[in-house]
Amino acid sequence: MSTTQPAPTRAIDSGLRERARRVLPNGMYGHLSTARLGEDYPQFLARGEGARVWDVDGREFIDLMCTFGPILLGHAHPEVDTAAAATSARGDVLNTPGPETVELAELLVDQVAHADWVMFSKNGTDATTLAVLTARAQTGHRKVLVATGSYHGIGAWSAPADAAGMTPEDHANTVSFEYNDLASVDAAVAQAGADDVAAIVCTPYRHDVFREQEPVDPQFARGVRSICDRIGAALVLDDVRCGLRIDPRGGWEAIGVRPDLSAWSKSLANGYPLAALLGAEPFRDAAGRITATGSFWLAGAPIAASLTTIRIFNELDGIALLRASGERLQEGLRAQVASHGLSVSVTGPPQMPLLLFADDPEFERTLAWARACARHGVYLHPVHNWFLSTAHDLATIDEALARTDEAFREVRDAYGAS
Amino acid sequence: MSTTQPAPTRAIDSGLRERARRVLPNGMYGHLSTARLGEDYPQFLARGEGARVWDVDGREFIDLMCTFGPILLGHAHPEVDTAAAATSARGDVLNTPGPETVELAELLVDQVAHADWVMFSKNGTDATTLAVLTARAQTGHRKVLVATGSYHGIGAWSAPADAAGMTPEDHANTVSFEYNDLASVDAAVAQAGADDVAAIVCTPYRHDVFREQEPVDPQFARGVRSICDRIGAALVLDDVRCGLRIDPRGGWEAIGVRPDLSAWSKSLANGYPLAALLGAEPFRDAAGRITATGSFWLAGAPIAASLTTIRIFNELDGIALLRASGERLQEGLRAQVASHGLSVSVTGPPQMPLLLFADDPEFERTLAWARACARHGVYLHPVHNWFLSTAHDLATIDEALARTDEAFREVRDAYGAS
Repeated sequence: MSTTQPAPTRAIDSGLRERARRVLPNGMYGHLSTARLGEDYPQFLARGEGARVWDVDGREFIDLMCTFGPILLGHAHPEVDTAAAATSARGDVLNTPGPETVELAELLVDQVAHADWVMFSKNGTDATTLAVLTARAQTGHRKVLVATGSYHGIGAWSAPADAAGMTPEDHANTVSFEYNDLASVDAAVAQAGADDVAAIVCTPYRHDVFREQEPVDPQFARGVRSICDRIGAALVLDDVRCGLRIDPRGGWEAIGVRPDLSAWSKSLANGYPLAALLGAEPFRDAAGRITATGSFWLAGAPIAASLTTIRIFNELDGIALLRASGERLQEGLRAQVASHGLSVSVTGPPQMPLLLFADDPEFERTLAWARACARHGVYLHPVHNWFLSTAHDLATIDEALARTDEAFREVRDAYGAS
Repeated sequence: MSTTQPAPTRAIDSGLRERARRVLPNGMYGHLSTARLGEDYPQFLARGEGARVWDVDGREFIDLMCTFGPILLGHAHPEVDTAAAATSARGDVLNTPGPETVELAELLVDQVAHADWVMFSKNGTDATTLAVLTARAQTGHRKVLVATGSYHGIGAWSAPADAAGMTPEDHANTVSFEYNDLASVDAAVAQAGADDVAAIVCTPYRHDVFREQEPVDPQFARGVRSICDRIGAALVLDDVRCGLRIDPRGGWEAIGVRPDLSAWSKSLANGYPLAALLGAEPFRDAAGRITATGSFWLAGAPIAASLTTIRIFNELDGIALLRASGERLQEGLRAQVASHGLSVSVTGPPQMPLLLFADDPEFERTLAWARACARHGVYLHPVHNWFLSTAHDLATIDEALARTDEAFREVRDAYGAS
């Protein structure tokens, strides 16, 4: 740090924010930037353990974001880390994959109902984009249908048409529909041309930012499956955010709808970088024809971490744990808002809740409450869904609720009941 | 493995190939597939240490590929692994980056001549694609100029127009020129429209597959810089493959040509997954406006591994070590081909050599020699440049040369001198 600059009144994040502004665009970029959340949110965390994180100034938080999804068993899980380190000591990134690549592919094919084969990569965007390429290679069609507001990564095909750096051509083959609205899918197919739709891409439920979460209507899911079958398009399920956490068999298995291709990432390896495209038999040949390669895609350590993560999650009956903790959290939050006389929605599956204040179009009260939570030691996001891990036991949830109650009190005092 | 299938005559790769064919497209995909290299090449390696790798059947190889680049200090480097594991134990992927993100950005800005800021990601493709987005956001132009045959990752903008799964629109804004041919760049600018060129993308030297490697003509590099300045386009240096290994200051620093943006990955963290876009001050604002985000991009362990890798590489004077080993290897190979009466080219910088047989349009003799090398315990690639690490000391090079000599003898016996 230069000593010629005037010292800030308070060295937030031990001065790292100030240093970061010099060497990172905006001082941080992407979804890990906390600039828009305000100074109550740390920009630099120093440590994580189980359900808690600590910032570089030593503040402790109960973490309800789990790194926006990757952390499924809690931060710094010793068994997962040991598996990854053992693989690194043996040789992480060799000229070829190691045996664990085959083992994990076999495990996923065994566990995920629609899958007959697997391709590993690094980013969720890799997996969703490989799905689109595979769908195009298989069908010979060009168009991709996506729901308005759904996030499928930063691939040119899925980015907003007006995003900086994108061209009109990048978006030429993308057509929008409305989630849970089958008539809008029919309209999108007509707009694209029924004989030129390569894929319809859906998330397992509606988890867009800035809005209440919404379960999938099973009729909608079945309708999309049926449209894909009729027009010879691939049904792609973007399970990047939900995969494992909602259903280890795939996000629509519980409602009996199987995609042709599914994209997974986030929680696959409890934080180690991994993504996977899973596909059904008729798409295997096309997947083998696309250009799909990356320097670190078959690295052994994340794959070993994933084998350990999935084994532990299954042994623990992780879904039951997550649902129990999530229901306790959602019920506790709802009781608190009632007792404070606030009008608030708590939506989403228990494992991935979101809380929004009603009649709050600029998200002013929602943000004020989230900032108050941060001050009281609960790390959550105002407009992006949260994530629970198996380290969030009921005692931790109760402790978090004691802190959120203080935050509700502050917001009610500042803004009044509603 | 199903017991109802007939047993193969020899369980290659301990049966893993057979199992992989069921759960991975083509049994393996991308550049880590050894299918086209034949059965002398293992598809599954079990272990790496320093300059050597071992396959799952226990065969040992001196590794001249270094995982196609990532391995800069040798496989399973204990100090690098310790740094990564310590960070994982502290919390690898938190809701924000940790302090090491700022430290590595500061180190790169300090070390790389043209760089004022850094954005980290995971794949080389991420870094080259973020460069293109940043160039477009800054210039307001659409077109990207790339050299015929140059590889810049699997982004839609850089993939071959006829690649499976790609659409004509994906390639609508990409225009080709010939590497080291300034007139062809002028022609490409004219074709694109001088007022619509966002970026000209170059590798530091010509390292395309299937052809002799070729140094950059400094006049060409200066000419491209000058064209970019004249038409208001960004000069993007794709240092993904060469970065650190050829010049830690940037691939064209030795010839005095500085890009606006440079993409790095491969060897940044000795195998841990990391990529970085580096940029000059005038492009900082645009970099801050593009959508650039990934679940694992700011994970601390690969960044800690990179800090350790760069420190060790600088302390060792890694460039001098790599050049000394590489020159010994290149001179040894040239002496061997002369003594066997073979006509062979050995091209590329000493750190990244390639050997091709002359008058071998189908690469028949080149592949036969590479396969013989594999049988004799040297792992290299017939048509992709090789990579050396600082673990390749002179004794290891001499041992490798003893093995390649046997391979030359076999090819001469099979095909005759040329």
